[in-house]
Amino acid sequence: MTVESNIVRLETKKEGEILDITSRVQAIVERGSIKNGVVFLFVPGSTAALTTIEYEPGLLADLPRRWHDGNGHSHVRASLIGPDLFVPFREKKLMLGTWQQIVFLEFDVQLRDRQIIVHSMGE
Amino acid sequence: MTVESNIVRLETKKEGEILDITSRVQAIVERGSIKNGVVFLFVPGSTAALTTIEYEPGLLADLPRRWHDGNGHSHVRASLIGPDLFVPFREKKLMLGTWQQIVFLEFDVQLRDRQIIVHSMGE
Amino acid sequence: MTVESNIVRLETKKEGEILDITSRVQAIVERGSIKNGVVFLFVPGSTAALTTIEYEPGLLADLPRRWHDGNGHSHVRASLIGPDLFVPFREKKLMLGTWQQIVFLEFDVQLRDRQIIVHSMGE
Repeated sequence: MTVESNIVRLETKKEGEILDITSRVQAIVERGSIKNGVVFLFVPGSTAALTTIEYEPGLLADLPRRWHDGNGHSHVRASLIGPDLFVPFREKKLMLGTWQQIVFLEFDVQLRDRQIIVHSMGE
Repeated sequence: MTVESNIVRLETKKEGEILDITSRVQAIVERGSIKNGVVFLFVPGSTAALTTIEYEPGLLADLPRRWHDGNGHSHVRASLIGPDLFVPFREKKLMLGTWQQIVFLEFDVQLRDRQIIVHSMGE
Repeated sequence: MTVESNIVRLETKKEGEILDITSRVQAIVERGSIKNGVVFLFVPGSTAALTTIEYEPGLLADLPRRWHDGNGHSHVRASLIGPDLFVPFREKKLMLGTWQQIVFLEFDVQLRDRQIIVHSMGE
């Protein structure tokens, strides 16, 4: 069993931005030496979050409109969704649903250079 | 150290359904070869989620009524709670609280065959 | 690769209490034998939760006021944020953002002795 560490770098441009990072995480898993395991994603910072959604135009418009706290603080939104997400993989393929993507949610109000820590564990 | 992979299969019948899967996850951990570790649960799909609750009638009625977005989209609810949940175990016993159960939350509007990916890691 | 198990003990005094446990988790990672890996935190019980925030006075006041369900049930709040949180570490240092702390959120209405399960995995 092994642990491998990688980073995904992003540049975000506005508050409420939702970025699909699925293909970048899949590429990291494919390049790695672990066949079966779990990939652990974490955002350092308290104004961004990670989750999975069906990444399609209707939902991309819908999601920011429905942040549960309406006019809430970006820090609150980020802490409610959380900075951490894991996805299992098998034969180096992420076990996501057909319409399910891994997304990075930017809640900060200014342009940011972001990095996501990607730790893979398995064998 | 080892990784073991299993699946829990479910059939859900209506939106807002909450299914207690604790005993099925505990059975997987007991059957496995890992004594101490963490079990990682993940739902492929973007209209369901995993969390823990005290599984009792009052709360089962209360929870759907209080989805933070009220009349929100099932995809939004699922993405806020998230598709991933882990629970540590020791001596093959899940380290849950006495009144804490692992639940699957169905947010889709139609009958679904669901599977939950269960990866155990530890030694 | 190794798994190590520890416990953080807390005493909470009132509903809505937010406790910064970052230094205690960092101390566990430093004392451990694992250099690079992930630390998995889990609260047994269905009326508390874990997340990360920037732990500063404004936000500490803001967060309880904005629980998305307003006058919702403590169990609902706990299940939405979730009992589990992981943080990656490298060279025995948690990979948090500069202003990002690990916090325990108490949603119960009475004084509680709490424990947080801390499992570290890595090599």
